[in-house]
Amino acid sequence: MAETLEPDSEGEADAVNYGEVDTELVERVVEAVAEEDAAALAALVDDLHPADIADIFEQLSNDQLREAVDLIPGRIDGDVLAELEGDTRALVLDELAPHEVARAIAGLDTDDAIEVVEDLEPEVRGEVLAAAPRALRVQLERSLAFDEDTVGRLMQRDFVAAPDFWTVGDAIDHMRQAGERLPELFFELYIVGPDFKPVGEVPVSRLMREPRETNLSDLMLAPRALIPPEMDQEEAAYLFEKYHLISAPVVDDSGRLTGMLTVDDMIDVIQEENKEDLLALAGVTETGLSHTVLDAVRSRAPWLLVNLGTAIVASLVIAQFDSAIEAIVSLAVLMPIVASMGGNAGTQSLTVAVRAIASRELTSANARRIVLRETLTGLANGLIFAVVMGIVTIVWFDFAELALVIAVAMVINLACAGLSGILVPLALKKFGADPAVSSSVFVTTVTDVIGFLAFLGLATMVLL
Amino acid sequence: MAETLEPDSEGEADAVNYGEVDTELVERVVEAVAEEDAAALAALVDDLHPADIADIFEQLSNDQLREAVDLIPGRIDGDVLAELEGDTRALVLDELAPHEVARAIAGLDTDDAIEVVEDLEPEVRGEVLAAAPRALRVQLERSLAFDEDTVGRLMQRDFVAAPDFWTVGDAIDHMRQAGERLPELFFELYIVGPDFKPVGEVPVSRLMREPRETNLSDLMLAPRALIPPEMDQEEAAYLFEKYHLISAPVVDDSGRLTGMLTVDDMIDVIQEENKEDLLALAGVTETGLSHTVLDAVRSRAPWLLVNLGTAIVASLVIAQFDSAIEAIVSLAVLMPIVASMGGNAGTQSLTVAVRAIASRELTSANARRIVLRETLTGLANGLIFAVVMGIVTIVWFDFAELALVIAVAMVINLACAGLSGILVPLALKKFGADPAVSSSVFVTTVTDVIGFLAFLGLATMVLL
Repeated sequence: MAETLEPDSEGEADAVNYGEVDTELVERVVEAVAEEDAAALAALVDDLHPADIADIFEQLSNDQLREAVDLIPGRIDGDVLAELEGDTRALVLDELAPHEVARAIAGLDTDDAIEVVEDLEPEVRGEVLAAAPRALRVQLERSLAFDEDTVGRLMQRDFVAAPDFWTVGDAIDHMRQAGERLPELFFELYIVGPDFKPVGEVPVSRLMREPRETNLSDLMLAPRALIPPEMDQEEAAYLFEKYHLISAPVVDDSGRLTGMLTVDDMIDVIQEENKEDLLALAGVTETGLSHTVLDAVRSRAPWLLVNLGTAIVASLVIAQFDSAIEAIVSLAVLMPIVASMGGNAGTQSLTVAVRAIASRELTSANARRIVLRETLTGLANGLIFAVVMGIVTIVWFDFAELALVIAVAMVINLACAGLSGILVPLALKKFGADPAVSSSVFVTTVTDVIGFLAFLGLATMVLL
Repeated sequence: MAETLEPDSEGEADAVNYGEVDTELVERVVEAVAEEDAAALAALVDDLHPADIADIFEQLSNDQLREAVDLIPGRIDGDVLAELEGDTRALVLDELAPHEVARAIAGLDTDDAIEVVEDLEPEVRGEVLAAAPRALRVQLERSLAFDEDTVGRLMQRDFVAAPDFWTVGDAIDHMRQAGERLPELFFELYIVGPDFKPVGEVPVSRLMREPRETNLSDLMLAPRALIPPEMDQEEAAYLFEKYHLISAPVVDDSGRLTGMLTVDDMIDVIQEENKEDLLALAGVTETGLSHTVLDAVRSRAPWLLVNLGTAIVASLVIAQFDSAIEAIVSLAVLMPIVASMGGNAGTQSLTVAVRAIASRELTSANARRIVLRETLTGLANGLIFAVVMGIVTIVWFDFAELALVIAVAMVINLACAGLSGILVPLALKKFGADPAVSSSVFVTTVTDVIGFLAFLGLATMVLL
């Protein structure tokens, strides 16, 4: 709150309470819920922006959330539903009757309404759609016909188009007449030919500053991206990010204008994508804070099982050298160091590669150069830590041959770490897999196996 | 390219070649650079969007990039400079003379120009500013007076404001007169009182559809966020994301309107922040693909050194139990499994926590509940993998007491992993450190030490 100045109290506009939701407010909400005090709860959230109400709800436990919804179902309007995170929204929707959901989404733009409807169980979804106003129902059904995570689901079906023979004045007069039928916000006027195919776009801020008699066709810019509704949302978000788009026209198979994408929805897609990459690298599939222990175990145990498999493989390598370890127990003391350094160096290369692939900086055009760089980086770090670890070993064990063994093993493992850290994600991408999801298990298996094999194998050759 | 339809060729607007930069194009650029064929190079990039030219440059090696810039310095205009990633931009700027840079940035909005100027060495920056048009120089110097990564650096100093007593018609007439002095794009008209403090805002799309005689004060919404120029960019980006802002007014100490932030710059901030978190978790500080092996070693070796320290601590724990390992060598075979499972479970908790803190879902209001959930999740996974690993040990070594020891060690280590995975980032945040940067070294130290200690300690007690 401290950093967000409130609007001047003398201003005529109604001040809405913006800023961060603070802990005290959440605690007062929890209290009101515990006391089942609907009036107090309603008063607490009354002036809040829907995004702030959603923030508070996301910090409640599942039971508190259900009770809060039961206390003030009427306050859970469409805007609040649209702002909630997926898991929390599913819980809230479960508490509301289909007609309550239908009423809540009635005032939303299609891109927001679809987000809510998507999350419903199929049978509930049918009831909600049946209870929704007819125009909205038709639009939602058309959106739902597109696959999940495609542009068709996210696009808004209201937009503003003008024929290419209009003037600025024609367009302004048209908008003044259309009034409420226009989307709540729009940033570009799309110019269409007689076949309703977009031939240009005029930013609204450009329109404003031109004389009424200017022809739109003299003013328009080439449409920057014409997006098909089947396009993956991530792909569209990438175009928005790269070309600094605020909105973009969506066109159907025959090239006719059919919808509009806006940048606020694209920010959500970007954040979702980033979250997935981050969690996938750590082996977590989902993570809503509303998840129960059971949900969390379900989402994490599979990855731990995979890791157990690879750890057992590494142990099988160690087991081959049990007589060496019996003879020189220091090998058991030192071997995790080699494996751990390899794992870390591999994860570094891997993370750099996954990010560079996601941001499309790493492509087949520069892959060879980057593979070489990562391998050389691994080799160089290997040499540095070979020296360091060699000295540590001499100081600790006073055993020069052992120091030599660990030094050479370190160079081998860190070079392999660099190489596998870049090759594994590139290979996964080539085979159409998501490099973020499965890379790290492959890479750490490589570095564990090579680490133990190089260290214990060399020790067997040199020391026994 | 396949998914981006080209504008209708009959359209009157100049078609620009949008879409992804394909490998073939990059290869042709590389070829032109190798042959020092300036004309061919210029022809290849001629119709490209600046963002696409930047994409191609980012895929060249440093030497190729320098040569490309030397071949077509005139084609490196301000838009291309603004689109380049930091490292690549620094290389390109090094190749250009100060007057060339000054010429390139002359046509940019201040928010783009500042990005370029920020990256210059201080002495070069002085020369560039001296060679820049006076108006731009004054604005840039004012922006540079703010700290790096604050709103003051990113804000645009051109915006559109109207007094609260104007009508829609007054505003439109004003904009038509102002013409070129207005920012290239804007999305909201800021309404100011007599003291130039913002009292409301009117989306341009709203302005368009109202009759000329409507009073702006009847139309305006409360300003959603009034942002001080000292605010951290991440904080501002969070407000944009949360409240779906397209632009926001920036106000000075006395509350007067001084600039404007736009959503396209905020997307860059969001992506930068996500990138930093992802890399920090893997122990990488920087990762431009233009980095040399030396840069990469410099950015990664420090983290590997820290990891070496923690690995040595873990080895010191193992060394305490060398007689147990000498007696039962299977302990050496199995011990990495316990540590590795703990490390993975800890990384899962940690990543979930870091993301939830970054997205402000994890706060002091729900921290206690989430700490409990993570610990219980660790415990539950510990129990699952205790059973699995117990069975594996019996099958492998036919040694029931050893199976019991590894099972109990697994439960202890995975519960500690869950607990430390959530407590460490929360504690770091509390002490003002970035949880993404330093959490993982603490957590893996905990899981290594506890893993070896529990397993080898229990084995010493039970088996010897």
